[in-house]
Amino acid sequence: MTVRVALLQHASPAGSDRAQILQTFAAMAREAKSKGAQIIATQELFASHYFCQIEDSARMDLAESIPGPTSTFLSNLARELDVEITASLFERRTAGIYHNTSIYMNRGGEIIGKYRKMHIPDDPRFYEKFYFTPGDLGWQVVDGCAKAGLLICWDQWYPEAARLTTLLGAEIIFYPTAIGWWHGETESDKRQQREAWITMHRAHAIANGVWVAAINRVGTEGDLKFWGSSMVISPSGEVVAEASTDEPCVLVVDCNLALIEETRRGWPFLRDRRIDAFGGLACRMLDAPVANR
Amino acid sequence: MTVRVALLQHASPAGSDRAQILQTFAAMAREAKSKGAQIIATQELFASHYFCQIEDSARMDLAESIPGPTSTFLSNLARELDVEITASLFERRTAGIYHNTSIYMNRGGEIIGKYRKMHIPDDPRFYEKFYFTPGDLGWQVVDGCAKAGLLICWDQWYPEAARLTTLLGAEIIFYPTAIGWWHGETESDKRQQREAWITMHRAHAIANGVWVAAINRVGTEGDLKFWGSSMVISPSGEVVAEASTDEPCVLVVDCNLALIEETRRGWPFLRDRRIDAFGGLACRMLDAPVANR
Repeated sequence: MTVRVALLQHASPAGSDRAQILQTFAAMAREAKSKGAQIIATQELFASHYFCQIEDSARMDLAESIPGPTSTFLSNLARELDVEITASLFERRTAGIYHNTSIYMNRGGEIIGKYRKMHIPDDPRFYEKFYFTPGDLGWQVVDGCAKAGLLICWDQWYPEAARLTTLLGAEIIFYPTAIGWWHGETESDKRQQREAWITMHRAHAIANGVWVAAINRVGTEGDLKFWGSSMVISPSGEVVAEASTDEPCVLVVDCNLALIEETRRGWPFLRDRRIDAFGGLACRMLDAPVANR
Repeated sequence: MTVRVALLQHASPAGSDRAQILQTFAAMAREAKSKGAQIIATQELFASHYFCQIEDSARMDLAESIPGPTSTFLSNLARELDVEITASLFERRTAGIYHNTSIYMNRGGEIIGKYRKMHIPDDPRFYEKFYFTPGDLGWQVVDGCAKAGLLICWDQWYPEAARLTTLLGAEIIFYPTAIGWWHGETESDKRQQREAWITMHRAHAIANGVWVAAINRVGTEGDLKFWGSSMVISPSGEVVAEASTDEPCVLVVDCNLALIEETRRGWPFLRDRRIDAFGGLACRMLDAPVANR
């Protein structure tokens, strides 16, 4: 009932080319395999720098079809290492439709799962709405050596996404992410932001009784310093392993899937959800209150 | 834009009679008023011991109609002190229908809001499903000196409840609660439980950009030691004030409501919710996955 997961945290700076990043990644994946990893997870958009800091349509050239060169590289790696891989890619679906997409490969290198980021941010230096068409595949759980829920970065702020992925049967939810500090922020704001990010992931684990894995990049790119801190959280909300804020890391963690049922029996939250009164969750705002809406 | 809130944490042990508890409460309320409180909040079922540790139908005698003696006492107190009060009561609605209910009184002592606990737990020593009929008033926000969301204890584990209350316009969500440790648990489990409880409240604040106030009791009652730790959390998820795990406390905190808009502009989570894909939240479980369900 235990699955060994490896989170690969690294820098993918502007200026490094894709081949170079993929070689770095492959070396880390081999290290993970040597440590017994069964599932290897990438950070968000791992194969390039975080290109969304400006709006530049030429950067859409970074997108690839799926399958495409990067996914084929990963499929070959999964087959070679006999591991499952979940990877975050910039997907070119057709001219003018690009997605922020996670795929999941089995040990044979076959793509057995795909999720397109549903919640798309747009903040100064994170102009993702410019690049990414919102996902249209809904919530996704893949039947790998664990039932793997696929969510991406901004989704992490939405309890709805974690809940829906749980209701589909997820045992481990993977959140590749690219989150960092802008150099103009105060130290206090920086601390608060990272802490809020950790808190949300822990809350997803607790509320749903699932394992959560968040994989973030490190390094400075332009105005942003990505804060790493990739982590794995148990179904009771304990951070069982955490990478540093600065260094690359192959974070290998055993996830005991039996803890899911044990935790949910102890705190049976899923039993008591008032589904008769949740209709309002599909509203933008409940401007005109209605009882039991 | 700042509202001063007082959380009244105290013991309400078995053996103390209601008049005695109400006098203790009134003294604490006067202290809160002397410190400038505008809203006073009680812990869950503050007017009696936590009677749900066994299933005994005679204990339903503790329930009162609303309005009834306890609510009238509180209305008089609100009028006398010129404060708003939100209080958690054991409500007798009719023979055989009892609720775990929060009411909200304005400064004139008038009851201007009522919420009946929607999520009812049932665990060893917390046999609430025996006593409390699930609420049928839906989610409630009261137009007091702040827009006050009313949720109760077990609701705290449900992101859906916090979200719906936020969508109704809540600025501060009040969670009267009765949560504690069973003497048979390990120290490690106890730490983890309290931390999970704090984490969930912080996550509600972060995900929704609202103030959160949780009011818990202290003291040992039978097999349970209630862990106090009443707290107020800012819209960015910072615990701005916290009571001890052991002692009674009048926790007086200024809540700057302007932080709500500031926080939500910085992290505009409410803007991006994928309401087109949230239908599944009203399901118990998504046994048969359907895209975009």
